[in-house]
Amino acid sequence: MAAHRKTDHCQIVDCTIRDGGLVNNWDFSVEFVQDLYNSLNEAGVEYMEIGYKNSPKLLKGAENAGPWRFLDDDFLRKVIPEKKNTKLSALVDVGRVDENDVLPRSESLLDLIRVACYARDTAKAIELATLFHNRGYETTINIMALSNVMDNELTESLAMIADSPIDVVYIVDSYGSLDPDDFRYLVEKFRRNLKTKRLGVHTHNNMQLAFANTLVAAEMGVELLDASVYGMGRAAGNCPTELLLAKLNNPQYSLRPVLGMIERHMVKLREKEEWGYLIPYMVTGALDEHPRSAMACRASAERDEYVNFYDKMTTPEVYSK
Amino acid sequence: MAAHRKTDHCQIVDCTIRDGGLVNNWDFSVEFVQDLYNSLNEAGVEYMEIGYKNSPKLLKGAENAGPWRFLDDDFLRKVIPEKKNTKLSALVDVGRVDENDVLPRSESLLDLIRVACYARDTAKAIELATLFHNRGYETTINIMALSNVMDNELTESLAMIADSPIDVVYIVDSYGSLDPDDFRYLVEKFRRNLKTKRLGVHTHNNMQLAFANTLVAAEMGVELLDASVYGMGRAAGNCPTELLLAKLNNPQYSLRPVLGMIERHMVKLREKEEWGYLIPYMVTGALDEHPRSAMACRASAERDEYVNFYDKMTTPEVYSK
Repeated sequence: MAAHRKTDHCQIVDCTIRDGGLVNNWDFSVEFVQDLYNSLNEAGVEYMEIGYKNSPKLLKGAENAGPWRFLDDDFLRKVIPEKKNTKLSALVDVGRVDENDVLPRSESLLDLIRVACYARDTAKAIELATLFHNRGYETTINIMALSNVMDNELTESLAMIADSPIDVVYIVDSYGSLDPDDFRYLVEKFRRNLKTKRLGVHTHNNMQLAFANTLVAAEMGVELLDASVYGMGRAAGNCPTELLLAKLNNPQYSLRPVLGMIERHMVKLREKEEWGYLIPYMVTGALDEHPRSAMACRASAERDEYVNFYDKMTTPEVYSK
Repeated sequence: MAAHRKTDHCQIVDCTIRDGGLVNNWDFSVEFVQDLYNSLNEAGVEYMEIGYKNSPKLLKGAENAGPWRFLDDDFLRKVIPEKKNTKLSALVDVGRVDENDVLPRSESLLDLIRVACYARDTAKAIELATLFHNRGYETTINIMALSNVMDNELTESLAMIADSPIDVVYIVDSYGSLDPDDFRYLVEKFRRNLKTKRLGVHTHNNMQLAFANTLVAAEMGVELLDASVYGMGRAAGNCPTELLLAKLNNPQYSLRPVLGMIERHMVKLREKEEWGYLIPYMVTGALDEHPRSAMACRASAERDEYVNFYDKMTTPEVYSK
């Protein structure tokens, strides 16, 4: 109701282009991205993740993707000829990035490079993120799919990261299956095992809990909060940027510029592309499954056959993880 | 992620027809309502609020409303010829109900009568609810718009209710402006001041917090949880029934029948009628205002002019509460 207490340590990382690109194959116009950058800057948002910095050589079948899937520094300078307060971020995946593509920070527009990995790839992620750290970037390691990682394996991953120079470690709810109690557990565990690191969270909205989970993390001292405008992101989408701007207790934030962005672009875009709370995504969230089967369902002729989808997902003979 | 702990004391009150009727002027077919009743019964939902039991004589301009706005006992017997496990509920508003319309429970299909009131009308609500209590019904008093009530006034209202025979007292977030911390505060306050009463919550989804707020209340021991299928309810709508079925720890609940209801009816209905997370409703929620201005905006030619709406709502000369 009131502006949210105990959250003035938080910073927002807007992922509209990067995670939203998973919805429309990164088919955002340069004008769209520029308008988003200016809107986020005016709103006081600290970071904009402007895409992936993976290598097209290491990712098959991505030839038709928009330029935000494989960010190029020269192209980026044309898009953002004048950098303002909002910093720029790129995500890389372990095994899909060519480290030679990443310039020293002094020669790049990027400020932050985030390395996404599964817990089992933590060693590789540390190696990669350390390299980017040494090239001058702010760095994060984003551990995905935490709901499917055993506690002892996670403890080991966190111990390895604790000894690395990485700045921030992310709790990622890839399946949108976690609730506020789960986030409380994970934030405490990360805090306990990573005493000198800052933390971040990335949520998905399958169970309509993305914003609530993000608020729990924020109140517990988590600093970097991922979000996207109008919630645009894969499947059920992310925590909406506009809700964080409306709710977090930070006098620098302004909701109005992002409302303008939504009005100019997002409503029309949502008519063309699909993301958000839809029953198949709710079902995979509730069952703690990757959304891929729900995405396949929505792309098929049976897109609205929810009972059939639910039966498939809950019948072991038909569906196996 | 896992089924939710500490919630086996909870019961669901599905408000699809009653609160959803505020969206479509109660234009639900008998077949729709019968299918909903059977689906909720099969899902294990404890209560279905099948409409309002206000008097058309006391409510002007409601001539075109569907029959669920002014429930009639004879009509109800035709709709539900055979009552199953799911009990039936009706809502009345202080000042709009003719007490002579309410039969003794032994002659009615209704089990529960809920009296909605503002805190200032608590005495009248107690009088009315006591009357229904004495006619044999389960009764609740639902105190609306709590975010706009001063704490001393609320304390006084609760003291009056504590001495009444009313069974359940509801915390109602009419504006969808409350967050989990606010609900924690209110549940504690109600609990402290109503030691012998059961509690209920009714949430709205303006800030995408309806489900999260309901979970907080459930974990704190609140027993009656309002919800509606696919979230159908006024403006931003309510906590979705399907999310409670998926998440609450109760072996009697089954999600599947409600997925069928959504598949058969709700998706088509949502194309025709509008509810859910929309920016004007988010704005009134964030500003702790009644959604009526946002509803007027959505019904006008400026329905997608969010910046303009925000400016009006935040400019004191233009807008006054």
